[in-house]
Amino acid sequence: MGAESVQHLAEAIERMPLVDHHVHGMLPDPSEAALLAALTQAGHAAPPADVFDSAQGFALRRHCAPILGLAPFASPADYLAARRALEADEVARRLLRASGIAAYLVDDGHRPDLLMSDERMARLAAAPIHRVARLETIAEAVLAQCASGAEFVERLGPALDAAAAEAVAFKTVAAHRCGLELDPARPTNVDVRSAADAWFAEWRAHEASVGPAGSVDDAPHGGHAASVDDAPHAGHAASARPRLTDPTITRHLIWWALERGAVLQVHAGFGDADLVLEGSNPARMQALVAATAGTGGRIAFLHCYPYVREAGWLAHVFPHVFLDVGLAVGFLGANADSVVRESLDLAPFSRVLFSTDAWGVPERVLLGARLWRDAAGRVLGGYVTAHGWPVDEATRVAEGIAWRNAERVYRRRFVSR
Amino acid sequence: MGAESVQHLAEAIERMPLVDHHVHGMLPDPSEAALLAALTQAGHAAPPADVFDSAQGFALRRHCAPILGLAPFASPADYLAARRALEADEVARRLLRASGIAAYLVDDGHRPDLLMSDERMARLAAAPIHRVARLETIAEAVLAQCASGAEFVERLGPALDAAAAEAVAFKTVAAHRCGLELDPARPTNVDVRSAADAWFAEWRAHEASVGPAGSVDDAPHGGHAASVDDAPHAGHAASARPRLTDPTITRHLIWWALERGAVLQVHAGFGDADLVLEGSNPARMQALVAATAGTGGRIAFLHCYPYVREAGWLAHVFPHVFLDVGLAVGFLGANADSVVRESLDLAPFSRVLFSTDAWGVPERVLLGARLWRDAAGRVLGGYVTAHGWPVDEATRVAEGIAWRNAERVYRRRFVSR
Amino acid sequence: MGAESVQHLAEAIERMPLVDHHVHGMLPDPSEAALLAALTQAGHAAPPADVFDSAQGFALRRHCAPILGLAPFASPADYLAARRALEADEVARRLLRASGIAAYLVDDGHRPDLLMSDERMARLAAAPIHRVARLETIAEAVLAQCASGAEFVERLGPALDAAAAEAVAFKTVAAHRCGLELDPARPTNVDVRSAADAWFAEWRAHEASVGPAGSVDDAPHGGHAASVDDAPHAGHAASARPRLTDPTITRHLIWWALERGAVLQVHAGFGDADLVLEGSNPARMQALVAATAGTGGRIAFLHCYPYVREAGWLAHVFPHVFLDVGLAVGFLGANADSVVRESLDLAPFSRVLFSTDAWGVPERVLLGARLWRDAAGRVLGGYVTAHGWPVDEATRVAEGIAWRNAERVYRRRFVSR
Repeated sequence: MGAESVQHLAEAIERMPLVDHHVHGMLPDPSEAALLAALTQAGHAAPPADVFDSAQGFALRRHCAPILGLAPFASPADYLAARRALEADEVARRLLRASGIAAYLVDDGHRPDLLMSDERMARLAAAPIHRVARLETIAEAVLAQCASGAEFVERLGPALDAAAAEAVAFKTVAAHRCGLELDPARPTNVDVRSAADAWFAEWRAHEASVGPAGSVDDAPHGGHAASVDDAPHAGHAASARPRLTDPTITRHLIWWALERGAVLQVHAGFGDADLVLEGSNPARMQALVAATAGTGGRIAFLHCYPYVREAGWLAHVFPHVFLDVGLAVGFLGANADSVVRESLDLAPFSRVLFSTDAWGVPERVLLGARLWRDAAGRVLGGYVTAHGWPVDEATRVAEGIAWRNAERVYRRRFVSR
Repeated sequence: MGAESVQHLAEAIERMPLVDHHVHGMLPDPSEAALLAALTQAGHAAPPADVFDSAQGFALRRHCAPILGLAPFASPADYLAARRALEADEVARRLLRASGIAAYLVDDGHRPDLLMSDERMARLAAAPIHRVARLETIAEAVLAQCASGAEFVERLGPALDAAAAEAVAFKTVAAHRCGLELDPARPTNVDVRSAADAWFAEWRAHEASVGPAGSVDDAPHGGHAASVDDAPHAGHAASARPRLTDPTITRHLIWWALERGAVLQVHAGFGDADLVLEGSNPARMQALVAATAGTGGRIAFLHCYPYVREAGWLAHVFPHVFLDVGLAVGFLGANADSVVRESLDLAPFSRVLFSTDAWGVPERVLLGARLWRDAAGRVLGGYVTAHGWPVDEATRVAEGIAWRNAERVYRRRFVSR
Repeated sequence: MGAESVQHLAEAIERMPLVDHHVHGMLPDPSEAALLAALTQAGHAAPPADVFDSAQGFALRRHCAPILGLAPFASPADYLAARRALEADEVARRLLRASGIAAYLVDDGHRPDLLMSDERMARLAAAPIHRVARLETIAEAVLAQCASGAEFVERLGPALDAAAAEAVAFKTVAAHRCGLELDPARPTNVDVRSAADAWFAEWRAHEASVGPAGSVDDAPHGGHAASVDDAPHAGHAASARPRLTDPTITRHLIWWALERGAVLQVHAGFGDADLVLEGSNPARMQALVAATAGTGGRIAFLHCYPYVREAGWLAHVFPHVFLDVGLAVGFLGANADSVVRESLDLAPFSRVLFSTDAWGVPERVLLGARLWRDAAGRVLGGYVTAHGWPVDEATRVAEGIAWRNAERVYRRRFVSR
């Protein structure tokens, strides 16, 4: 098994369509500040050097610069200038299409007001968009329209059903709200009603102190643009929306999604500083995962860094657990191999998925795809050369991660063939 | 230091006898379902694809297939057919002997009723078997015969002594029962008596509700065959045996074993889903480890994944701590290097042991041995080429892990020479 | 990008000056026992085999032996003999100078009575020494001179100011005392006064039981020499000094340092067994880190193993967080690459620092420097060959870690040019 086999594998991976099973929408015309903000998980306005002098920044200069007509590793200043010289749509078109992503599953739970329409993104990307409905966002929107906790409980079910009708999956950001260490028991109706009353009261008290929701406009999109999973620090206005942190209602939403046999995406591992890192460890959710094994629903842990090995174990011992290392691949750049490798330690290969978790800017889409192809080629290529894996078997494993596993878990055809 | 040195090292590792210091018995004639179940830590009946399309499954097809007369990477169907075409004893004989394991330390704490006799396994393997006594199993057997907590306390000591007379070490599955974060203090007699009373009362109440132990037969051996460290989900009958989860009695057993100067094997890190992963972190046991440093007993943390680095630190700072990465090596397949490497980070080299933790099927024995030899050859070979380690020093490190360290910690000669 | 580029990078890294931003003083003439003790984090007197047959021990034989005139991998006996045959100052001079360290930031908080003067160390090393003041040591010295908690509160501020006047940074060993999971709130004056009263009372009660501080001499320097961050097991005499474990006073000290805009070094991750490993996870300090982001102070997490990825995330999301992997590089030897690589996963490259954390013996200084240069050369060299990083960019990243980032975070010129 020599260099030629590895080359064949790399070429096969290069040609594979990808299903990005967790991504977000794109900003229509990001300012330079918005671009930089979208390239970090920092909540503060990170200086350009923090963004560019990093593993992700180096990968961006290497892989995105040529797509804008520059040499690899063009300087940050040249990159920004080249980006400005092109229309935003052209930048997006080039980068999105170069990713080779054949379908996107878009979570619209964070600042959809800032993002382009699905239609425009689909046209620029030349790929269809499917929707992932964020449970917390649905619950918050319902509460904002209710006059009591009881009304919330009454209206929640229909709102979830309506969202389900348009979505291929659900998503929870419990990691950002109450952490993943959740009581495994399905909450009773009484539990949910009581929690809804308390949340409603808290929200009403808050609203009284800051004025009604919508009475002030959102602060301009700031340095936290990449904080796609939550927005507590988006200023006064954002905090004037109800924010679900109650673990009982969160568990109710999780059970609801799983019991209807849906796929539930669970943010796990790093993200922005609004989550408590240790509380985002997927292993913290073990009891709830065990309790829901018989529901017919599936759980997809997203990202998982630095808890990839823990997530792989959950996929090994539970029949309904899947994982990806999407956000980590994009940020780790030259060390993306490490998480691609760890994701294959214990998880059955059919449980590993591909995502970019990009938000706002197409650079992150391209990087997620480009870095995954390269890392998968190196990791699986090493297994071919050092461990005798047949190239066609390694290719099959890669193809599963790239798109076939996503079609199986979501029970949809995403890739036309 | 070039390719030739590494080749010499690999050949030396290939020839080394191995002492498998933690393994279990073999099923006499496993059905296909039992084989598959023994190849996973999943508690559900994992589909064949989950078992074969995994790091361990690929390693099995690569390394076990040729031993059954097939080409490497024969298909799962061909492998299963070839296995059926041979007598079970012949499969076991070939795989066990190909492992090069010169002695086995067998923990019989899980479903010994299903397993072949020591004599038969020793004959098939052409290697002696030594016994490891599982503390929880002893305590449970005692309780089942007692009429009170007081009687339990009275009879426990003699039962432990009797087990000790036939065993080279003890084992605890505290990770599966109460987690490793145990109060470090040695329980007083009053503590133990009080805990025994409570356990007895609970057991008596349970027995009254489900009928006496032994009145129903065990459910057929199901999908949890590899769950070798515990059996709470083995159905009605198994749950009709007393089950020790009380931390006070567990600590009493641990202190008892260490104070008599024995080696105590401690399951740590992943296993089946009956343990809480974070509670199996050996670092959680730090206080108890510290408290027992002066007892004369030694602690061997088993497996440890993904907490190998934590276990290595415990071995570094405490004089009586040892570790292995056995279960992880067998399951990680092509990525076994990662845990072999981490196990050498902080631990003195004399504290690292070899095990397979195989249960039920000889494939796991062969894989544990084969993958360890290959991983050790690559990791230490890399240290020879990139770090100038003399080949004879690297060989000495490997030999320690393979068998010499086991002879030192267990204070027995296992390898004839 | 071939072997030549990597060679250029390695040569550039070889020539770089290093700023060791966290190190300790040297023993003037260590006995063999003191040498061995200084080479381990074990609290017991580790046998020579534990010290030499380890990743660090092999690195020592490889890299230090030639500096004493021996062949690489000279035997431990030959190494010890060669060391004895030379004057201690000559050993120190050779090893310190061979490290290429251009400036040392010395934390004198552990057993300064045993160590040579700064002037002597600076002369032997041919490099300037700057001081890092350990907050707990200052507080303990103040308490020992006070007649009440109120007096402690009154005298603490001036003592800290005096220390600050002579130091370039502060250090906390909170990980060894109360763990890093600290309440984020700045303690009020009332909180501090109340905690000071309690600490004073406890200390006075303790003093009454063991006799006044200083009335007995310290026990001879024992097997815990490398336990540089704490000394609770240094025998009767050491325990006759006040020992700060109170989290409120600790938080007060941390806030004080950060609010004056200083750099606060925070021990994180492994060390000796006096810390609880999980409590040393820098992620445990997340809330306090978040609360202090606006103070103007900077936090440098030291060592961090095995929580390097967690520390990198903190550096990514917070503007004032830095990290090093110093102690781990020195101990991991041939596997130092792993932590150097992980430190670059998420942290902006400008937030990664170099240290040795050596205490007592110059071998650890040499190893910290030698192993870092080699590991950085391999890791960054791999990024050049496999990821197309331009050599000058890789060199710039290395140079930042080697010394430039230290000059930026400490706002001082350390390297003459």
